Amino acid sequence: MQNAQPSHAIGVFDSGVGGLTVVRALMDRLPFENIIYFGDTARVPYGVKSVATIEHFTQQIADFLRAQNVKMLIIACNTMAAVAADKVREASPVPVLDVIEAGAREAAKRTKSGGIGVIGTPTTINSNAYARAIHTLEPKYRVYSQACPLFVPLVEEGWVDHPVTRMVAQEYLRPVFVESIDTLVLGCTHYPLLKPMLLDVTGSRMELVDSALAIADQAADLLAEQGLANPHRGRPDYRCYVTDVPVKFQTIGERFLGRSLGKVELVSL
Amino acid sequence: MQNAQPSHAIGVFDSGVGGLTVVRALMDRLPFENIIYFGDTARVPYGVKSVATIEHFTQQIADFLRAQNVKMLIIACNTMAAVAADKVREASPVPVLDVIEAGAREAAKRTKSGGIGVIGTPTTINSNAYARAIHTLEPKYRVYSQACPLFVPLVEEGWVDHPVTRMVAQEYLRPVFVESIDTLVLGCTHYPLLKPMLLDVTGSRMELVDSALAIADQAADLLAEQGLANPHRGRPDYRCYVTDVPVKFQTIGERFLGRSLGKVELVSL
Repeated sequence: MQNAQPSHAIGVFDSGVGGLTVVRALMDRLPFENIIYFGDTARVPYGVKSVATIEHFTQQIADFLRAQNVKMLIIACNTMAAVAADKVREASPVPVLDVIEAGAREAAKRTKSGGIGVIGTPTTINSNAYARAIHTLEPKYRVYSQACPLFVPLVEEGWVDHPVTRMVAQEYLRPVFVESIDTLVLGCTHYPLLKPMLLDVTGSRMELVDSALAIADQAADLLAEQGLANPHRGRPDYRCYVTDVPVKFQTIGERFLGRSLGKVELVSL
Repeated sequence: MQNAQPSHAIGVFDSGVGGLTVVRALMDRLPFENIIYFGDTARVPYGVKSVATIEHFTQQIADFLRAQNVKMLIIACNTMAAVAADKVREASPVPVLDVIEAGAREAAKRTKSGGIGVIGTPTTINSNAYARAIHTLEPKYRVYSQACPLFVPLVEEGWVDHPVTRMVAQEYLRPVFVESIDTLVLGCTHYPLLKPMLLDVTGSRMELVDSALAIADQAADLLAEQGLANPHRGRPDYRCYVTDVPVKFQTIGERFLGRSLGKVELVSL
């Protein structure tokens, strides 16, 4: 593969459609960058798989994107970031960003009390990756983590502001509320869609950190620093690869992306 | 492969752990039969995948079980049964049973009014396979189908009798209640775990059909008819193959099986 060039695309990948919230944030923050998205929709979700399987699948996807000559890799899936980010970095000649590191940095920057809450899928929470990332930045911060396994299916059902979803959020956040935290990291790419409801449930108790916005800022800084920002001011090229096109893929994908998905190409790894 | 022999095992397969509710029913109904279970836990869930992908995966699993010389194949996954049962039957020298046909037969036998409700995952419901199976038996029956996408994650969260689950059930069943049906098919292997709660919510309005119990009865009848029942009265051999051993697999598996899971072997297809 070639070295990173400013005209090359940013490669973003996820186990499914969730990472499109990261693409959405990148499109808004970096409107001249070409973006290639890869969603492993045939094998989603990763959150219930073993470490060995997740590492293997992650490497396959990173290899696929490197073969497309991307100038930067963004791991938009919290599960892959938790389990396999180090392995991807080791083998990568281009910068690798991941949502966990981005969310941890943003939370560490924002907290005043030093008490940070993290919500995510069971695999992300069990991996303890957010706590490790936050403690690498600042060992004295307290991190309280809470798995919210029903949030992803609720978002995919479209119940983003349904009474059931509020009830589930209240149940999951009850133990978080008794900890004295002032910053809550949305540690799953599906959760930005729940943000209005979560803002309502958490009220003024805490600030929410959206990893998708955080990683878009981080990508912008890094491209500027390394002279890798695309100088071309035209309409960028967006490509979307998936390993399966399931029922309602277009609908759900567009809900995450907040706009038309365009052409989706099917590939197998 | 050899022809079916009475001493051979029954092969049961599913996309994940859900099919263990069928194994549980078989163990109770046919306590002398050897059983081989295959759960494709690395690629679960199938309900969100395309038809081509599901057909391909189903054939791989059926081939694996045939190579173990099973005397009967049971498709315990509603999604695979809906999409790929015909293809498996075409290629099979041994009898093939599937949960959809079994559930449809049982519902057709039990209904008095001829109004049958079916609940299942979106893929099962979209396939319309239960309605087709019921209408093949009796064209004048009315079938009303309702997808319940949150039931599987709620069961896997262990919230089988949680207020949230009741609220979700009431919301999903509201349109079912206004149809005049007297029989409700639990068209997903996860749903038997919700049976006590669903009996409470449906009350005396309708009878519930559990496909796992129905298919165990059908298997018993077929083995007797074809002289394939195992004459050996000893402790049978149970084997469990999976494609991945995810977090909490043992715990969740045992909740479905209702007893210890024993040794689980990891294979890749």
